Amino acid sequence: MNVLVVDIGGSHVKMLASGHTESRQFDSGKDLTPRAMVDRVREMTADWRYDVVSLGYPGKVGPNGPEEEPGNLAHGWVGFDFGKAFGKPVRVVNDAAMQAIGGYTGGRMLFLGLGTGLGSALVAERVVVPLELGNLPYKTGELLSDRLGKRGLEKYGKAEWVRMVGEVTGVLRVAMMADYVVLGGGNAAEVDPLPEGVRRGGNADAFTGGFRLWEDDVEPHDRPPSTAWRVVP
Amino acid sequence: MNVLVVDIGGSHVKMLASGHTESRQFDSGKDLTPRAMVDRVREMTADWRYDVVSLGYPGKVGPNGPEEEPGNLAHGWVGFDFGKAFGKPVRVVNDAAMQAIGGYTGGRMLFLGLGTGLGSALVAERVVVPLELGNLPYKTGELLSDRLGKRGLEKYGKAEWVRMVGEVTGVLRVAMMADYVVLGGGNAAEVDPLPEGVRRGGNADAFTGGFRLWEDDVEPHDRPPSTAWRVVP
Repeated sequence: MNVLVVDIGGSHVKMLASGHTESRQFDSGKDLTPRAMVDRVREMTADWRYDVVSLGYPGKVGPNGPEEEPGNLAHGWVGFDFGKAFGKPVRVVNDAAMQAIGGYTGGRMLFLGLGTGLGSALVAERVVVPLELGNLPYKTGELLSDRLGKRGLEKYGKAEWVRMVGEVTGVLRVAMMADYVVLGGGNAAEVDPLPEGVRRGGNADAFTGGFRLWEDDVEPHDRPPSTAWRVVP
Repeated sequence: MNVLVVDIGGSHVKMLASGHTESRQFDSGKDLTPRAMVDRVREMTADWRYDVVSLGYPGKVGPNGPEEEPGNLAHGWVGFDFGKAFGKPVRVVNDAAMQAIGGYTGGRMLFLGLGTGLGSALVAERVVVPLELGNLPYKTGELLSDRLGKRGLEKYGKAEWVRMVGEVTGVLRVAMMADYVVLGGGNAAEVDPLPEGVRRGGNADAFTGGFRLWEDDVEPHDRPPSTAWRVVP
């Protein structure tokens, strides 16, 4: 079965299908409606063959798709019928969850997304638990998302920020009983050297995660297989 | 199908079977081996009819049973064949996880056990994720388990301890994206008034959790049903 993975971000929409190695992308932004996204994706992948679609969505996702409108795209995503628009079975998951699934290599993994804020998700076997650990206080009382997010990097400088990342990942790894931590997000590359038990996610993790969402699937695709990856609500 | 639930603690072992309302118990302690536990349970429940057994174990449990020896009982629990000893199918889960399952009423629930330390588990649908949130620092830098555990209650006094419980449950509820918090453990009764979004678990939660472990089960009991409760490793 061939899968088309679409990773929807605030700056770009990226696509990759089974059997291909070069992803394609277009710019996104405040004007992008779900209809425009689907039309553009279908147009740009017209020469790719796929049976099903995985969508990484930049916002909260429930059993029936997006549950909140995206912060950096147009509105209309909640309640949109992606399956009808693509004419194929579609699975939608949160974009950080999709990336976490792609970076998973067994055991219990804590995913931390170092971007504007601090994304987080816990993965154990094929269960994904989205979290909001950025709302925990750092020992000084500030939020972790303020310390480890983009503003923290600017405010404290790289050396101190890297030290804090090491300290916080160590604490969270124990508290969440994680065997290892995977760092994603735009600022993961800044964490050098990497703390013990921490590694950087790969650029292709979101695509790998999208492919994995359909692993072991059997037709008629109307419900997930018993071994499916599951993002708990 | 009738279930015998056995809740193994450091002070008592408690039993209840389907169709009965009065639990039975005996004292446990440093001398209790798994063999002695099974013999005593079988003897004290000889007039009860049950097909399968749920064991709540005070320690880490993996797919093959206990993974660490209990702190307050004799040794020999890791690798012990409970199914053979009972002559029935047995499911073993961590005792806090069993209590959390019993107190669950839907949505995403954070269970906090207020005892010697701070137990914790997240429950979403039928997935249970044991955690060690007691290892997170309080804003002063001390561990949450020191602040909210037995020593914190003694050191800071009830009023300040209750205030801290309210503060910490509020923060953890947001960070763990929990719809509500359930307090278990011996000191849960001390939390009065209860903070918003927080409730106390019931005394029978461990038994309810044990019964739920076999819900929807079908013979031959050799693997969990697809809808089974699942404690992730």
